[in-house]
Amino acid sequence: MTTKSTATTKRTAFFISDGTGITSEALGVSLLTRFEDHHFEKVTLPYVDSLEKAEETAEIINSASKRDGAKAIIFDTIVDDAIRKVIKKTDALMIDIFAAFLGPLEKELGVRSSYKVGRTRITENSRYDERIEAINYALDNDDGARTKLYNKADVILIGVSRSGKTPTCLYLAMQYGIKAANYPITEEDIDDQVLPQILKPYREKLFGLTIEPDRLCLIRNERKPNSRYASIKQCNLEVEEAELMYRRERISSMNTTHYSVEEIATRIMVKAQIQRRC
Amino acid sequence: MTTKSTATTKRTAFFISDGTGITSEALGVSLLTRFEDHHFEKVTLPYVDSLEKAEETAEIINSASKRDGAKAIIFDTIVDDAIRKVIKKTDALMIDIFAAFLGPLEKELGVRSSYKVGRTRITENSRYDERIEAINYALDNDDGARTKLYNKADVILIGVSRSGKTPTCLYLAMQYGIKAANYPITEEDIDDQVLPQILKPYREKLFGLTIEPDRLCLIRNERKPNSRYASIKQCNLEVEEAELMYRRERISSMNTTHYSVEEIATRIMVKAQIQRRC
Repeated sequence: MTTKSTATTKRTAFFISDGTGITSEALGVSLLTRFEDHHFEKVTLPYVDSLEKAEETAEIINSASKRDGAKAIIFDTIVDDAIRKVIKKTDALMIDIFAAFLGPLEKELGVRSSYKVGRTRITENSRYDERIEAINYALDNDDGARTKLYNKADVILIGVSRSGKTPTCLYLAMQYGIKAANYPITEEDIDDQVLPQILKPYREKLFGLTIEPDRLCLIRNERKPNSRYASIKQCNLEVEEAELMYRRERISSMNTTHYSVEEIATRIMVKAQIQRRC
Repeated sequence: MTTKSTATTKRTAFFISDGTGITSEALGVSLLTRFEDHHFEKVTLPYVDSLEKAEETAEIINSASKRDGAKAIIFDTIVDDAIRKVIKKTDALMIDIFAAFLGPLEKELGVRSSYKVGRTRITENSRYDERIEAINYALDNDDGARTKLYNKADVILIGVSRSGKTPTCLYLAMQYGIKAANYPITEEDIDDQVLPQILKPYREKLFGLTIEPDRLCLIRNERKPNSRYASIKQCNLEVEEAELMYRRERISSMNTTHYSVEEIATRIMVKAQIQRRC
């Protein structure tokens, strides 16, 4: 469809919003990933919520298009029409997310949409509280530190040290308000060849994480270089025994090696049938 | 445009993806917020990545439309055309995010987009590592527990107990790979009326959080009911003195009371001019 030179031009991609910019960024990055031969310089501009800021933003966009010698790409979720118009006048391709979809939604729902910035904030106080509570729960029940609140857990992740338990628990809390505790499978547990006593009453809440020994070895070496803990021999042993325990005890599990924290978290939710709390 | 009865019908909104579903969910929720008189039952269906799962999903959608007596709304980011076609045949309004925007992007960029699921995973290993490192940094440097690694911090949040420091640090780490430490402003610091000695070398990295005393009082009462710590008198005193310290020491600050964790994090980035690390 085009010459090589066009395809490899550097472009600037802007994610613009009158809020955090998180939605326009997530969607924009996801779309741009489909154009893997292009190099995009990504710039997020949140809180563009006044005409003055819109004019400043428009200047930044035009400078980028001029500098790159190619139109900037804009992904925006600006609610206010007047502000959006200022951005629309720039020399750029505007992927106008709200404009594209509010029309069809209004038609189907038979009502006009309301255009007010920040409306979510007020109604989301309970969501906020739920998430903070879940984050505190994850922190308090991290790494087997405490176990007496396991009865309140939605899920208890188990796995060898550095298999991804803590970030996953925090993500489940932050994104979905899920109370996730985690308990490390240590060498002693492995030597005993049985499920740690403390976990037995909560068997149906357990979910096992595993990881490829090579990757585990790399991660542990960053933390404690050249230790027995980080040796490939030790990693092999621990992973093998943990996986054996999951099978023996029929605990659902997943291998985290090739997944992002988001993917690990959402896959656990599907596999363990955990419902979001917010 | 319509009668009241239509406007208040309950509908089911589906966020469907062959990945985590986080993007379609973020965009969908954001769009549905504009229709505040409607009640939407929200269902996220991630990892719909085979024709078999697509058929199952289609059945779920059709049942929902039938049960509600009104078309379900689908927000999808399914990459595979064959899978998307199965979903499109359902009795629902499909907000087809990729279909809407890949066309204009292809035209502007002069190339066809590539349609491969999960492509991001492989290229994102460095992003993953950066985030895990930042999460570990936030956990290790939480609540003034350790201060010797403050030279590695991108930002150090300060504020009274329960003003929102920990969740904000974790969010900055998880979403942007930013190394954020936090240090609690305690009663002793307030009595001394000066910036804690340990923070002085890092003055340019400090960012202050504050909160309305009423809200702080509520939050603290959940943690330690009827304590001196949770009393409105104590909350008033601590907040007042902390704000005074920020002004005296010219430390940028923000009031967290009416904001979500995402908003607090992104506003700090703008105010303190911190760049994302991934």
